[in-house]
Amino acid sequence: MNDLHRLPSYTLVISCPDKVGIVAAVAQFVAQRSGSLLESNHHTDVEQGWFYMRNVISAESLAVSLAQFREEFAPLALEFDMQWHVRDNADLQRVVVMASHASHCLADILHRWKSGELPCQIPCVISNHENLRSMVEWHGIPFHYVPVPKEDKSAAFEQVTDIVRRHQADTVVLARYMQIIPPSICDEFAGRLINIHHSFLPSFIGANPYQKAYDRGVKLIGATCHYVTEDLDEGPIIEQDVIRVNHSCDKDDMVRLGRDVEQAVLSRGLRHHLEDRVIVRGNKTVVFSS
Amino acid sequence: MNDLHRLPSYTLVISCPDKVGIVAAVAQFVAQRSGSLLESNHHTDVEQGWFYMRNVISAESLAVSLAQFREEFAPLALEFDMQWHVRDNADLQRVVVMASHASHCLADILHRWKSGELPCQIPCVISNHENLRSMVEWHGIPFHYVPVPKEDKSAAFEQVTDIVRRHQADTVVLARYMQIIPPSICDEFAGRLINIHHSFLPSFIGANPYQKAYDRGVKLIGATCHYVTEDLDEGPIIEQDVIRVNHSCDKDDMVRLGRDVEQAVLSRGLRHHLEDRVIVRGNKTVVFSS
Amino acid sequence: MNDLHRLPSYTLVISCPDKVGIVAAVAQFVAQRSGSLLESNHHTDVEQGWFYMRNVISAESLAVSLAQFREEFAPLALEFDMQWHVRDNADLQRVVVMASHASHCLADILHRWKSGELPCQIPCVISNHENLRSMVEWHGIPFHYVPVPKEDKSAAFEQVTDIVRRHQADTVVLARYMQIIPPSICDEFAGRLINIHHSFLPSFIGANPYQKAYDRGVKLIGATCHYVTEDLDEGPIIEQDVIRVNHSCDKDDMVRLGRDVEQAVLSRGLRHHLEDRVIVRGNKTVVFSS
Amino acid sequence: MNDLHRLPSYTLVISCPDKVGIVAAVAQFVAQRSGSLLESNHHTDVEQGWFYMRNVISAESLAVSLAQFREEFAPLALEFDMQWHVRDNADLQRVVVMASHASHCLADILHRWKSGELPCQIPCVISNHENLRSMVEWHGIPFHYVPVPKEDKSAAFEQVTDIVRRHQADTVVLARYMQIIPPSICDEFAGRLINIHHSFLPSFIGANPYQKAYDRGVKLIGATCHYVTEDLDEGPIIEQDVIRVNHSCDKDDMVRLGRDVEQAVLSRGLRHHLEDRVIVRGNKTVVFSS
Repeated sequence: MNDLHRLPSYTLVISCPDKVGIVAAVAQFVAQRSGSLLESNHHTDVEQGWFYMRNVISAESLAVSLAQFREEFAPLALEFDMQWHVRDNADLQRVVVMASHASHCLADILHRWKSGELPCQIPCVISNHENLRSMVEWHGIPFHYVPVPKEDKSAAFEQVTDIVRRHQADTVVLARYMQIIPPSICDEFAGRLINIHHSFLPSFIGANPYQKAYDRGVKLIGATCHYVTEDLDEGPIIEQDVIRVNHSCDKDDMVRLGRDVEQAVLSRGLRHHLEDRVIVRGNKTVVFSS
Repeated sequence: MNDLHRLPSYTLVISCPDKVGIVAAVAQFVAQRSGSLLESNHHTDVEQGWFYMRNVISAESLAVSLAQFREEFAPLALEFDMQWHVRDNADLQRVVVMASHASHCLADILHRWKSGELPCQIPCVISNHENLRSMVEWHGIPFHYVPVPKEDKSAAFEQVTDIVRRHQADTVVLARYMQIIPPSICDEFAGRLINIHHSFLPSFIGANPYQKAYDRGVKLIGATCHYVTEDLDEGPIIEQDVIRVNHSCDKDDMVRLGRDVEQAVLSRGLRHHLEDRVIVRGNKTVVFSS
Repeated sequence: MNDLHRLPSYTLVISCPDKVGIVAAVAQFVAQRSGSLLESNHHTDVEQGWFYMRNVISAESLAVSLAQFREEFAPLALEFDMQWHVRDNADLQRVVVMASHASHCLADILHRWKSGELPCQIPCVISNHENLRSMVEWHGIPFHYVPVPKEDKSAAFEQVTDIVRRHQADTVVLARYMQIIPPSICDEFAGRLINIHHSFLPSFIGANPYQKAYDRGVKLIGATCHYVTEDLDEGPIIEQDVIRVNHSCDKDDMVRLGRDVEQAVLSRGLRHHLEDRVIVRGNKTVVFSS
Repeated sequence: MNDLHRLPSYTLVISCPDKVGIVAAVAQFVAQRSGSLLESNHHTDVEQGWFYMRNVISAESLAVSLAQFREEFAPLALEFDMQWHVRDNADLQRVVVMASHASHCLADILHRWKSGELPCQIPCVISNHENLRSMVEWHGIPFHYVPVPKEDKSAAFEQVTDIVRRHQADTVVLARYMQIIPPSICDEFAGRLINIHHSFLPSFIGANPYQKAYDRGVKLIGATCHYVTEDLDEGPIIEQDVIRVNHSCDKDDMVRLGRDVEQAVLSRGLRHHLEDRVIVRGNKTVVFSS
C-alpha cells in the first residue's frame, strides 16, 4: 500500500488500447531515467481490449525533472494512444467539501485531513445550513453558507459554482449534501465530483433509502461512493460496503448504523481518488486499491 | 446459540398483538409445569403493535407431555389471540431439495446433513437434470429426475407437486433450481418454500444477476435467502451476505466467488428456518438468530 | 435494537444462579405494575448454572415510581439471590475520557457525544499531552493536562484519581491512553474502566502490537475493547473486530488502517456498556447486543 | 482476477534483490517474444530491499516454446540474481490431501476439485481413520488408510512419506489432519506443505483452540492457512479469516461455526498456492491475490 506521501514521488496514470509491449515501454522509459518504482499496478480489460496502469515513481531516484519527464513521455504516449497524466504527490489536490445538516461525513473528513491522513488541501466547505460553521471554522477552514431555496435553486448553484471555481477545486465532495446537482456542475466536474449515497446501489436509488431498506426487510444496509453524473445515483462506483441489521432495527437505528458505513466508504473512496488509484472508463471504475 | 438438538427439547413459537403481560403469562405457564428455558427471545414491533416470541424448553424438565402442553396452552393462546405452534425437536422436519445443474448448494446441504449439522431429514432430491444423481444417491437419498420442457411446464410441476406431497415435505428448498415456480406451489407451501437468489436483493432481481452486477460495476456481490411468493424475488428475506469483488473480476469470477456466498447464505437461512427461528409477518421476517 | 433514550425508560439488569421460574417471576413483577417491555433478553450459562437478564421497561407505562420499583423488587431479588440494578435511562452516565497524543478515538467519541448518538455526559477529558486541548475545549468540555513522568508516575495517578472522583465518573474510558494503569485505579473502577487495545487479543499483548503483527505476517489486524484489570490486556472482552491487510502494508499502513477499527470497536463497546448491555462474570462478558 | 486456466498460459514467478530496471527487463523480455500479459503484479519490500513479481503470459501469444523461454530467460535471471520458476498452467499440480476424522475441509476440497474450480490433480487422500474412505472413493480418488499409533508414530510417517513420494506430490495439504508432522517431512516439503489451523494465529497456538477461545471469551473466532515448518503453528501465513461469536455460543457452537471459516480459508489459501500467487520469504508471504 505504502503511503505515497511519505517519500517524494510522482504518480503516472495511463489508460489506452491494449497492445503487446506497453508495460515494457513504460517500465523502460522510467528505468532509463533511473526511476525507482515504489508501486505499480496494471490491468487489462480483455473484453474491452483496454489497458490501465498506475506507477508511483520515487522523485529522488529520477534523473530528470517532472517537466522533462512530461515532455519526453509525450511521444511515447502518442505512440500508444494513451490518456495519461503524471502528478507530483507533493502538490496536494484542492478539495471543496459540500455538506448539508448532517455532520458525520464532514467531521470524519476534517479529522482525517487535520491528522494528516488525507493527502489534500481543503480550501473551503460549502453548506446550505449554518449549523456546521463552528466545526469547520475551528479547523481553520472558510465556511460558505449558500442556502438553496426550494422554489428556485439556480441562483444558489451559480453561487456554488462560483465559489468552487474561485477556490480552484480539483475535486468536489458531496458529504451528504442532499441536493440534486444541476447538469452544468456535473459536466464541469466530471470525474472529479464525488458523492456518498446511503444505500448499496443499485438498491434503493433516490430519496429515503433507509426507509426503503426498512420496508423491504433487508438484512444488510450499505453505502456507495461514486462519481456524480447527470443520472441520479447511476455514476461510476468507487467503493461500497455494508453492515448487518436485523428485525430489531427500526429506521432510526438503520440511520445511526448507516452513518458509520457512509463515512468509512466515503473516506476510502476519496482517498483512492486523491491517490490517483481510480480510473473511470464508461460507467465503471478500475480501482488499484493496493 | 446452543444447538437445540443436543438436549431433548420443544420449541414454542408465538406471534400476537402486543399487550402487557404476555411474557409473564407464557413464562409462568412454562414455569408452573417446571419447564426450564434453554433459550428465549422476544421482540416487539412497536410500530405494528405486534409481539414475537420463541422459547426452547427442556423436554426432560417439563412435568407434562407435549400433548398436554398443547392442550393446556390453547386457552392462553386464545386469550392473547396468538398464532403459535410447539414442535418436538426430535421430530426432524422433512426437507425436499430441488436443484438444477449446479452442484454447490446441493453438495453443501447434503454434506451438512450427513455430518449431522443440519437438523432435518431429506426424503428426496428433485432435479430437472440428471447430472447430480450419483452424488445424491451416494448419500442414500432418492433422486427424482423431472425434466421441465420449455414449451409446457405444467405437467412437470404437477409431477413435482406430487413427489413433494408423497414425501410429506415440511419444507422445500430451491437450491439454485433456476425455474420459476408456479403460483399453485407458492401457495401450497407458503412460508415453507425457501429460495437462494444469487444477488443482494433488491439489487439485480430476475435472471443473470452476475452479468448485471458486472455491467453496473458494483464492488460487492451478494446472495439472498428468502421465502418464495408469487412475486419473483420479492418474498420475505431470511438471510443475506456479500463478498468483495473488484475490476479484475469478470463475470465468470463473480459466478465462482458468488457460489461461496450462495451456499453460506442458504445454509444459514435454512438452519434458521429448521430451528423455528424465523417468523414471517407481511413481507418481512423476525429472525431470532442467537 | 431500539434506541433506548428516545422513550423514557428504565433498564433492569439481573444475574443470579439459574432456577426455574426466574423469567416468570420478573416478567410478572413488571406486568403487575403494568410495565411494558421495550426490549428483553436473557441468557442461561448452562455450564456455570448462571442466569443473565436485561429488561428495558417503558417508564410511562409503569404504575409505580422508580423508587417504589426498587423497594418492591428487593425481596424478589433476595429470593433468587440476584445481583441487580435498575437505571433511569434519563440519568446519563458520567464518562471521563483519558487520552494521550493520538486523536482518533477521542475525536470519534466526542463527535458521537456531540451529535447525541452516545447516551452519556462527558464531564472532562484527562490527557498526559497538551495537543488535544483545543479540540476538547471546542466541544465545551474541560481538559485536564496531567503529565506522567517516567521516573515516578504515582503523583500523576493520584491526581488522575482525584480528578475522576471529583467529576463523579460512572465510567472511565482509556481512548488510547498508552499508560499502564496502577492496580488501585483498576480496583476502584472495576467493571467501569474501559480500554481499547490495538490488536485482536489475545494476540499481541502489550506494547507495539502493530509491529508484532507486521513481523508475524498476519493477514488481518484487529482491535479489542475490554474492561481493565490488573493483568495487562487480560480483562473481560466486550467487543472485537478486524480489518484485512496484505504484504503491501508496512507497519505505518497497519497503524493507519488500525485506527478505523480501534475507534469503531471502542465506540461500539462503550455504547454497549452505557446501555447496560454488558454483564461481567469472571473474566468473560455477556453482551446483549440486540 | 481472471481464472488462469481458461486460456492456455504460463505463470512466471520471480523474487530477487530490488534494483532499478527489473520490471523493464522482464517486461521487455516477454514483449520481445510477443508475449501478452494476462495478469501482472509486483511488489517491492523497501525495508528488505527485495523485489517480487508474478506474470501470467498468454501461451498462444508467445513466439517461443516454454523450453526456449526457460533457456533464454536464464541469463537474465542470473544477471538479477533471481529465484524464479515458470509453470505451464496446463500442467496441474499433484496435490495429496491428508485428513483425519473430520470431513468438512476434505469434502470442500473434493467438491471444488470435482466441479473444476480447484486447478489441480488429487492423486490420493491419506487418512489415519477409515471413516472418509467411501466419500473419497466416490470421487474416484484412491484412499490410503495409515493409522498413527500413539506409542510410535515413526513407521506411520515413513509410510506416509512413501505414499506422498510415490504419488509424486507437488503439494501436500493437511485438511484438519490433527497430527504433528515430523521435521523430516516439514523439510522435504518446505513451501509445499499447507495446513489449516482452527484459530486466528498467533492466538491459541496448539491443541484445542476453540476451548481456549471459549475460555478467553473472545468475540470472534478464526482460522489460519499456513505453510508448515518445524515450529508448530509458526509457519508463514497465507490466509486468515474470522467469524463473529457471542456469549450464547458454547464450545460446540464455536466448533460448528469455525468449520465454515476453516474450509473457506483453506480453499482460498490452497487456490492462491496452486495459482502461484504466494511467494515465501523468511517467515512471511507475499500473496498476489488479485
